Amino acid sequence: MPAMSEDTLRKLALEVRNWGKWGPDDELGTLNYITPAAIARASRLVTAGKVFPLGVPLQREGPQSGTRARFNPIHTMFRDGGDRPKTPAEVEAAEGYGGSDDWIVMPLQCVTQWDSLAHIFYEGQMYNGYSADLVTSSGAAKNSIDKTSGKIAGRGVLLDVARHKGVRALEPGYAITVDDLEATARAENVQVEPGDLLLIRTGHMSRYLDKKDWRHYDLDNFPGVSVYTARWMHARQIAAVACDNYAVEVRPSEIAGFRNPFHVVAIPNMGLTLGEIFYLEDLATDCAADGRWAFLLVAPPLPVTRAVGTPINPYALK
Amino acid sequence: MPAMSEDTLRKLALEVRNWGKWGPDDELGTLNYITPAAIARASRLVTAGKVFPLGVPLQREGPQSGTRARFNPIHTMFRDGGDRPKTPAEVEAAEGYGGSDDWIVMPLQCVTQWDSLAHIFYEGQMYNGYSADLVTSSGAAKNSIDKTSGKIAGRGVLLDVARHKGVRALEPGYAITVDDLEATARAENVQVEPGDLLLIRTGHMSRYLDKKDWRHYDLDNFPGVSVYTARWMHARQIAAVACDNYAVEVRPSEIAGFRNPFHVVAIPNMGLTLGEIFYLEDLATDCAADGRWAFLLVAPPLPVTRAVGTPINPYALK
Amino acid sequence: MPAMSEDTLRKLALEVRNWGKWGPDDELGTLNYITPAAIARASRLVTAGKVFPLGVPLQREGPQSGTRARFNPIHTMFRDGGDRPKTPAEVEAAEGYGGSDDWIVMPLQCVTQWDSLAHIFYEGQMYNGYSADLVTSSGAAKNSIDKTSGKIAGRGVLLDVARHKGVRALEPGYAITVDDLEATARAENVQVEPGDLLLIRTGHMSRYLDKKDWRHYDLDNFPGVSVYTARWMHARQIAAVACDNYAVEVRPSEIAGFRNPFHVVAIPNMGLTLGEIFYLEDLATDCAADGRWAFLLVAPPLPVTRAVGTPINPYALK
Amino acid sequence: MPAMSEDTLRKLALEVRNWGKWGPDDELGTLNYITPAAIARASRLVTAGKVFPLGVPLQREGPQSGTRARFNPIHTMFRDGGDRPKTPAEVEAAEGYGGSDDWIVMPLQCVTQWDSLAHIFYEGQMYNGYSADLVTSSGAAKNSIDKTSGKIAGRGVLLDVARHKGVRALEPGYAITVDDLEATARAENVQVEPGDLLLIRTGHMSRYLDKKDWRHYDLDNFPGVSVYTARWMHARQIAAVACDNYAVEVRPSEIAGFRNPFHVVAIPNMGLTLGEIFYLEDLATDCAADGRWAFLLVAPPLPVTRAVGTPINPYALK
Repeated sequence: MPAMSEDTLRKLALEVRNWGKWGPDDELGTLNYITPAAIARASRLVTAGKVFPLGVPLQREGPQSGTRARFNPIHTMFRDGGDRPKTPAEVEAAEGYGGSDDWIVMPLQCVTQWDSLAHIFYEGQMYNGYSADLVTSSGAAKNSIDKTSGKIAGRGVLLDVARHKGVRALEPGYAITVDDLEATARAENVQVEPGDLLLIRTGHMSRYLDKKDWRHYDLDNFPGVSVYTARWMHARQIAAVACDNYAVEVRPSEIAGFRNPFHVVAIPNMGLTLGEIFYLEDLATDCAADGRWAFLLVAPPLPVTRAVGTPINPYALK
Repeated sequence: MPAMSEDTLRKLALEVRNWGKWGPDDELGTLNYITPAAIARASRLVTAGKVFPLGVPLQREGPQSGTRARFNPIHTMFRDGGDRPKTPAEVEAAEGYGGSDDWIVMPLQCVTQWDSLAHIFYEGQMYNGYSADLVTSSGAAKNSIDKTSGKIAGRGVLLDVARHKGVRALEPGYAITVDDLEATARAENVQVEPGDLLLIRTGHMSRYLDKKDWRHYDLDNFPGVSVYTARWMHARQIAAVACDNYAVEVRPSEIAGFRNPFHVVAIPNMGLTLGEIFYLEDLATDCAADGRWAFLLVAPPLPVTRAVGTPINPYALK
Repeated sequence: MPAMSEDTLRKLALEVRNWGKWGPDDELGTLNYITPAAIARASRLVTAGKVFPLGVPLQREGPQSGTRARFNPIHTMFRDGGDRPKTPAEVEAAEGYGGSDDWIVMPLQCVTQWDSLAHIFYEGQMYNGYSADLVTSSGAAKNSIDKTSGKIAGRGVLLDVARHKGVRALEPGYAITVDDLEATARAENVQVEPGDLLLIRTGHMSRYLDKKDWRHYDLDNFPGVSVYTARWMHARQIAAVACDNYAVEVRPSEIAGFRNPFHVVAIPNMGLTLGEIFYLEDLATDCAADGRWAFLLVAPPLPVTRAVGTPINPYALK
Repeated sequence: MPAMSEDTLRKLALEVRNWGKWGPDDELGTLNYITPAAIARASRLVTAGKVFPLGVPLQREGPQSGTRARFNPIHTMFRDGGDRPKTPAEVEAAEGYGGSDDWIVMPLQCVTQWDSLAHIFYEGQMYNGYSADLVTSSGAAKNSIDKTSGKIAGRGVLLDVARHKGVRALEPGYAITVDDLEATARAENVQVEPGDLLLIRTGHMSRYLDKKDWRHYDLDNFPGVSVYTARWMHARQIAAVACDNYAVEVRPSEIAGFRNPFHVVAIPNMGLTLGEIFYLEDLATDCAADGRWAFLLVAPPLPVTRAVGTPINPYALK
């Protein structure tokens, strides 16, 4: 790993680091930027009563290739129609006509999801300076996802960079710049405000949806944000950022020797909540049609204690 | 099982049956009562910017005793702080400073949850007349929970029956009547409207929260709605109903020989979506304080294909 | 599917069908051929005190590609070294120095395994005429693997067909014939006897071991037994047959329109227990070296109730 | 914790410590005592051809109460009889008549099982001096159970202490002494030899089998070996020891402040493999009937890589 890479990363990391900003015990990071007033204002954006669910289906055919401990959800039944009581005697014994029960096994980051602030370490530490040793096999003693249980609702803004650039999808490896973000916002006639939940459409997911085949979605290179947009997000006081690709940031990365430098800058240093694998197709189409790119975004995490991620089905309400 | 019980159940079931009402292919049932206009109106209720998360924590200590195929979530790590690269050589090999990944195994109805319309059968059929045989070990071919993916947002109304009756919790076995519901609404000065998502507080959960011990929450008798409230919900065109107890309805049941008669009437016949194990404490306290018992409720299901339930973390926004 | 295929399959199936042979309640099939006397005789084959474990490792890199509901085992920790009490106060609180606990999620047929007689259906029935409807989401009410709990020990015979034919591995698609089996036995100077547990080496696994890459082991075509060897196994009164390939039988199959015709003939009709993914390398090498191809085989199933397969680690003792 | 307790424990631990005895890289401990000659001799004990399976069933009703990360196995289906192709067209599309597949989720120590030498730590170390830090969320880098893959077969000896003392079951809390073990062996006219796999029957399991209810089997106090038998096992060069109780050793423990002192002495210090929850009823009855208390014991672990335990179904062959 070139020493220059480490220096570049460190400089950026320290520049946007928010440790201590919300006190030594904070575990929320930039979600603190969301205010009640902003939530109330965002709710007034719901004028048409439309709901756009942004979660991809949880099923065996999904975005995970099974490498790096991420596999698609496994879902089966405890009881099904074949188990139901059929004769009167069986109905009587069962005290009813029967029903079904099911269960699931899944990585918490296998579908549309939020990363917790315990997901990435930097030099042995998490956001706000907590030691990485606090994440053991029994889970994360700090920065776990359940701390955000009532926190992820607010004004959502969709920046459809692919559409702005006139393509179905940005090229794999394309790093979205600050200029791209600002130009897209201008074109959409929307202002990015402090506390916003920012959605960025790269078009990466569209490729796989178009061919109705998720395979390699996670392994292929993809377009995503440049590591250098971290400064802009820091300055703009973004509360969270989510993308339709696998990792928000561009792959391959722009900093040799680091696979996910934006993750390293954003999560443990800035304390920025990242969202991945967001389904933005229908929402983007609707925003393009009515020219309204801001909305109420309600994206509750499952409050899994000591967890480092959560599957979600965010609702954009317009 | 007394023949009278079956007759009673059947009479009620047929009276509220909504099969065909929204066409022969419908899989949403009473969620069809929610209109865009109602969603937009409900959003205007968000004036203070408060968020109340209604999901209980997902952890080993939870509401399930492990009987009847329901156990509490099992959560462990694939990678934790102990696995992280530590030396420069390790960091280089790992292309970064490391991170954490986790996973979960859980019944889809083990915590705060929505039942799908495939959850309960009546005489070999599901809501809208679909055969119970369509629910096999590979899941529900009809009425699965992912069909509701973008559908569960709207006006929420909390009827705090326990508080109205001046108790911390209704007695186990107490069957909440139509009169109770109407009297509570009157006292709260709130109107129940078509398409509402109705939350009913029995106080059952408060008992276990008070003693900080979930054990027997699912096994003990509990207060809940009378099976005869089904007619009222049908007439009022309620979209969904949820409770702070284990099964919405009262236990033991009012109809000898049937363990869950309200489930049988509501789910396969009326097509009513039921929500269970809702955490209503903080919301109830706030509503009592400001006298506003209606709010925007956003409760997205995880879109698990072919599933018969989903864990949720509903947000009530005021 | 050509009608001729069905006729061919049916003719063979009926010819070897053992229904009723061991009574109407039998759930063991050909395992009934193993006698105490045979077990005692087989034990006398253990003269060198050598143990050959025939199970492949249970790990993420394994023989399953993840299709058709078979994935490689997922194994993680509940407690690890990082969770251990470290200070005297922690040791005292924990009443000790700590330890580790782990768990696994796996298909029961994902590694070296026995199929139960409930694994394959023929025209709606299982072995001995039990209805396929007895296998519901709550498992197999008949022919489950735990019925064999104390039954799978006896004389093992290895027929190394690949070695006999002078190749590292038979070609994918090669169907091992009765002549091949008999010629191999003659060359090995071993007699196949009633009640034997027959191991057949095709060399298929060797290909993947040689390249240290399991991928496509289950998806590629492979050498295996011809469906027509079923008659010979029936006549010889084989108790069970196992192979180093994925399905005992050859792929693609010799009967157009049927993916696994040998399975259909052997399991539901003959009641023959099949073993798959057996690691035979070291055992084969040793047998070739000392010229002794018979041994004591002890291959206990995990007694999972209502299960249709079991992971195993069979021991061949010589 | 009394300082005296620590001293007592340490003295015993160091006295039986086998670190380095089989080289600095050893991961087998006392299993090294098993020799090929002993295996061959033990096989000659199989004269009647009887097989006694010693594994308890894997099912929801089992020995685990769900505390301390141990729950009973969870088993469901991927495919069952209800999913099978039924019409000729379905059979053709499926290329066959269908079948069943299932899967399991379980702690590796939830049923009859072997502990690996990575299961217990002593002052931050495992057997042979390996650091406890080598057991991370990705499993045990040393002393994992797969290292024993071909090692657990040999002469088994059953010491039925309960029977010798004339009781159905020893009292909970009764600590089996060296005298008890020797007196039982004398009464059984059996010699304990180096390399033996020692089975000790306390009768604890009989209590729960008698009442057909496993509940509290793991939580109640139970009879078991005294921590001071460790010296005797060390001197006798026992290869492994297993019991019909939950933890081999007596509960409550004899050393104040330590929950499992025998575990601490035996596993990380002596390198002794422990087996728990062994079903010894039928074997004990047979041994009492024919007066032969020694046999061939074949108890293969599942070779789960990096694992710290394994479910087993040991066979005692006589």
